[in-house]
Parts: sequence; structure tokens; C-alpha cells
Amino acid sequence: MSEKKLTYAGSGVNYDAMDPFKKLCQKAAITTAPNLKRYGLVEVPASRGESCYLMEAPDFFLGHVEEGLGTKNLIADAMFANVDKTYYDNIAQDTVAMIVNDLITVGALPFSVAMHLAVADSQWFECQKRVDDLIKGWVNACRLARCTWSGGETPMLKDVILPGAAMLGGSAVGVIGNKANLIKGDIEPGDLIVIIYSNGVHANGLTLCRKIAGNLADGYLTKLPNGRTYGATLLDPTHIYVPIVAECQREKIKIKYAVNVTGHGWRKLMRHSGNFSYIIEDIPIPGPIFDFIQKNGPVDDQEAYGNLNMGAGFALYVRPEDAPKVFKIARQQGMDALVAGHIEASPTKKVVIQPKNITFEAESMDIR
Amino acid sequence: MSEKKLTYAGSGVNYDAMDPFKKLCQKAAITTAPNLKRYGLVEVPASRGESCYLMEAPDFFLGHVEEGLGTKNLIADAMFANVDKTYYDNIAQDTVAMIVNDLITVGALPFSVAMHLAVADSQWFECQKRVDDLIKGWVNACRLARCTWSGGETPMLKDVILPGAAMLGGSAVGVIGNKANLIKGDIEPGDLIVIIYSNGVHANGLTLCRKIAGNLADGYLTKLPNGRTYGATLLDPTHIYVPIVAECQREKIKIKYAVNVTGHGWRKLMRHSGNFSYIIEDIPIPGPIFDFIQKNGPVDDQEAYGNLNMGAGFALYVRPEDAPKVFKIARQQGMDALVAGHIEASPTKKVVIQPKNITFEAESMDIR
Repeated sequence: MSEKKLTYAGSGVNYDAMDPFKKLCQKAAITTAPNLKRYGLVEVPASRGESCYLMEAPDFFLGHVEEGLGTKNLIADAMFANVDKTYYDNIAQDTVAMIVNDLITVGALPFSVAMHLAVADSQWFECQKRVDDLIKGWVNACRLARCTWSGGETPMLKDVILPGAAMLGGSAVGVIGNKANLIKGDIEPGDLIVIIYSNGVHANGLTLCRKIAGNLADGYLTKLPNGRTYGATLLDPTHIYVPIVAECQREKIKIKYAVNVTGHGWRKLMRHSGNFSYIIEDIPIPGPIFDFIQKNGPVDDQEAYGNLNMGAGFALYVRPEDAPKVFKIARQQGMDALVAGHIEASPTKKVVIQPKNITFEAESMDIR
Repeated sequence: MSEKKLTYAGSGVNYDAMDPFKKLCQKAAITTAPNLKRYGLVEVPASRGESCYLMEAPDFFLGHVEEGLGTKNLIADAMFANVDKTYYDNIAQDTVAMIVNDLITVGALPFSVAMHLAVADSQWFECQKRVDDLIKGWVNACRLARCTWSGGETPMLKDVILPGAAMLGGSAVGVIGNKANLIKGDIEPGDLIVIIYSNGVHANGLTLCRKIAGNLADGYLTKLPNGRTYGATLLDPTHIYVPIVAECQREKIKIKYAVNVTGHGWRKLMRHSGNFSYIIEDIPIPGPIFDFIQKNGPVDDQEAYGNLNMGAGFALYVRPEDAPKVFKIARQQGMDALVAGHIEASPTKKVVIQPKNITFEAESMDIR
């Protein structure tokens, strides 16, 4: 095992190189917004470049999200080569979660989710067990996300997809039926940050996790202290946070801002465009998977919190009096939560993780 | 050049192996439809497995489509290696067209389109010319499709996507604002089939086209009789048929059924679930690209019409008195059209292309 410190950029994913493209796209895409007028819709300008694009109708908002799984299914493939389990039920849930957890950040609840599964050739479909697990998992994820599985696309892309590999992604359409449930981003100093726990690494940082596996003698079969394998633990499925946002709406709790903690890890907590300090006073105890990754990378705290969810899957920003209610709803939905911190006025934006003595400045995340 | 006859299955795309997966998905997905009830929606059962999934609200229908480009961008990459043009403006239009031309088959007009661009690593974004063309083309396609470019997803998928390659796709949300504009599929004997011309091969059959290029001494730079290169001609962008359907709606022409002629070529003309004979009496003169493909494959008529659009990009099934009006609208929108045939009662479904003496029986397309 190399003692060279692993960084996220070093493991092959370089957000810095990609983000200029995203910015160019956003700048160009905004010129197309007037086309909505023909349909009695207007765009919600603040949703441009956010996790979910929103359109306003007279009586409701519609949200549209396109998202991908990333490379997590490669880990399932590697595990399936060694154990009698495909993990594609989990992979399906990860994919749906990536899509719908973005949608709910604006308060939209998904009603329709479509699958995109691109493979190199038809051989991929010959493993019936994997196919069955994928379908079973997708249906179950739609149940958790309370939406219909509307359709999908299954291209065979020779010379685009690597033989044996698969690209999973998809899209969702959601609605804010009561316009008061729009998450406006009207945060202010004093608001509290409620963190909903993750169920492990979810679907981010997997390129780094795969690199670590390559350095281990037993690879994904390496045992964690609790006896589970590294691979199986990585493959725990991403939580679907739809029911928590839906229940907050039902109980008329005003969600001021919401963050799906994915790429950029805890830096995502300052995704909001305003200048605030996000002061984190209490953090989830990261599960054993994060200890393992940090030790075996090695990955230091700065890098880990800057790229992995480290136990925090989703964050809701609410008024102080609402924080305990959100906590209670999360527990009722079977998920752990933590009133983790608060928002302060600040000349520049930053995330301060006090228990870890880490500060992420605005420059560390040059895209919203 | 091999004289062995090229078939679509032989070139690497085998729909037969994939379609069982699609059917399993449809069967499973239908169980999730009751989740729509929470949002005051119900699915339109007939739209399951069709080109566009439809949901019914009290006053309108919503459509949701996920689609991919296929492998056409590999041809653009190959051309760009030889000429000073990326063709990614065309590729963007192809991708948007693939998505929105599916949506309009049920009468839904797209208002929001999202991009999915998956690459192997960040190097893909370092070619500014290609990036600029892609963005310019996507904006222009949204103008043609009369929708907003809502957002997108741009993952870097090392070990999933081949180095240097890109997977393009996306999704659209559309609406039928006046419920009477729903394309119900209520065709009957005597209805006419209006074919709207394609702009070349569009984005289907490209795996076969790539194979042919590999057998040519000058590859994509081989000249067609008209002096244009094979590659440039293949890369003519897919027509976007949104304005034609929109204008038909505006002029209150009842579209009874619509087919986006993509994979399965003219076999798609019997996509409808009913048993009818689709009798084609007149066909577009296929452009020089199709002559070239047929000669250089070689690809016989049966194979060509069964897999390529052969000049027919989109088909509208209407009452006899409406056919000339559709023709006129197409011409007004700058596209050629042809009243190509009619529907007859039949114990089994089939497409009969009389000028070519070709009949496609139902078994040749065992998925709707």
C-alpha cells in the first residue's frame, strides 16, 4: 500500500477541469428560458445550476432533473465476480436516489423516474440474476421515492462503453403542488443545519474507493473491523430522502434550504449563493467505512470531508424552532439525524467543521 | 470490401437479445403506477412501452422521455480527426431530436430538455472548439424544439466510458395542454400515412455505417457521387419534428398515431398494438447516403428498410381529408413530406412497401 496521500483529483476525477464546461452550459442554457412562455411557464432563475431545475406554472412548480450513478456499479461487478450476489438491487436504489435526492432540494417531490442504462453489447443482459436484481431494486426505490417508474432507455454503445461495463443514470420529474413548499434559499444568520445521516459512502467518492481496493491484498473482500467486507459495505444503498421532505411539507415545516451531500462532500453545505458561514458544531460519527477509507487511502480529514459525505447524506436548513421537528420526522422515517450547526453572517462564504478544525473557503468550491 | 451481406444484427446491435429486458422492465414498472395517485395523476396505460410515457392530470397530460444518441458522435470524432470541423453542433441537435421526436409521438410538446454527457475523463473538455459547438448546437436545437434547456449531468466515468469517447443522451418533459390533442392511436382502415422526410440517416443505423467506413479505403472521407464526404453526409443533423406536430395541433388536425422512425426502420410503422396492414404505395426517394450505404454494405432493401429510415424520418397517421393539410404544414416548416400509404384491416399486423415489394410481418418486431 502506497503511503502517498490520496486526493480526489489524484484518483482521476478532476472537478476543476469540468466546471468551466458546466458554467458555459448554464450561460447558454439561460437564453432558452423564454421558450417556456409558450406553455404558460416561467423558469425559476435561482434554480439554474442548482440541483434541480424549476419551472413555475400558475398553481404549482415543476422540477426536472437528469442525473447519473457514477462508477459505483463497477464495485458491484467486482464483488459479483467473487460472491454469489450481484448487488444490482442496491445499485438501482443508488441511481434512483441520486436523481430524486437532487429533486427534493428545491422542495419538489418526484412523481416520475426514468432509467438510462447504456451498455457495450447485449451480453450484459445475459446475466438474468443481475437483470432481475436491477429491476427489483428499481421498483423498490420507486416505492421509497413514491414515484412511478415511467420508462427508460437501454442503448448498446459499442466503442463508447467499455465491454462488460454499464452506465446507469436517468431523470425525474417532480412537483411542488403547494407553492408555499418551494425551498427558496431564504436562509439567515441563526438558522440551524439539520444533518440526516447517510447510509455509508452512497454514490460519491467511489473512484477513490476503487483506487484503495486496488492497493489492498484482498481488494473488496478485505474485512472491516466489524467483519463485513469493504466491498459489501461500500455497496450499502443510498438513502432516499423523499419521505423526510414530504413529511416536513405535510407538517408545514418551512425548509429554507436543502443540500444533497454528494460530490464535493461537506463543501456542498455552502452550495447556496449567499455569503454565510456554516458553523458545524456536531458531526455524525462516520461509519466504519469512512475510518477504513481514511486509514487505507490514507485520506486526511480535510480531503475526506471535502469529498465524501462522512456520515452526512442530506442537510436541511431551518428556523431554530423547526430543527427538533425535522429531527423527529427523520427518526420516524427510520433515519438518524443531528442538529449539527448554525448559519452566521460572513463577508465570504465558508464551512467551518469545528470538531475537526476544518474550514472550507468559498474558493474550494467554485461552482454552485 | 467484403461482399458478405451486412445485417444489422451482424454489425453489433442485437435488439432480439435486449428486448426481453425491456419487457421485464415494463412489467415491473407498471406496478409503480399507483404512486402517481398521491400527486393527482394517473398513468395513461397505453403509453407504457411507447415512445413517451404519459401521465394524466385533470386538465392536461404530462409526458416524460429518457433517450440517448447512440454512437453517432464517434463518427463526428473520426471526422474531426481529419477535418477542421467538430460536427458537435449537429451531434447536439441529433441528441435533442432523439429525445423530443419521441415525446411528440403522443402529442406532447417538449418544454424542458436536459443533457446527459458522460465521458471517461476531463480531457474531453479540453477541446474548446468541440465544447463550444456542442453548446451552440444544443441551444439551437432547443430553439427548434421550442423548449428550455433545463440542466444536465456531466459525469466522468473512468472504466465505464472508453477513453476519448462520450455518451450523449438526456430527457424531456412535455405537455398536452389541450387534452383533445392526445394522440390516442385510434387508427382505422382508410386512414392515411403521411411520411415526413428525414435529413439523412439521423441517429440510427450508425453502428452499421461505422462498419462500412471501416471497409472503405478512405473511410469517412470517401466521396459520394455529389462530392460530399460519407462522414459529413452521415453527420447531417436529425430533423426536429416538434413544429409540425405543434402546427397540426394549432390547426386542429387530429393526429391519430405518430411514429418516430428510428431503430427497426420502417418496421416501426407497425409499432401500434393493433392488427392492421400498413400499405405503403409511395416512398421518398432515399437520399444519396442510403444508396451509398446499400452499395457499400452491401445492404439489401429488406435489411435497409427494416433498420434505416430510408428517407422517412417521422410518420403521421390521419384521416384522409387531413393528409393534404399535414403535407402543407410540413412544407411550411421547411420539410418535405409525402402521403405515402394507407391502413387496411388485417388479421395480423404487417408493413407492406409496395414499390420495393417488401413485407415486414409482426414477428419481425417483437416489441412495440
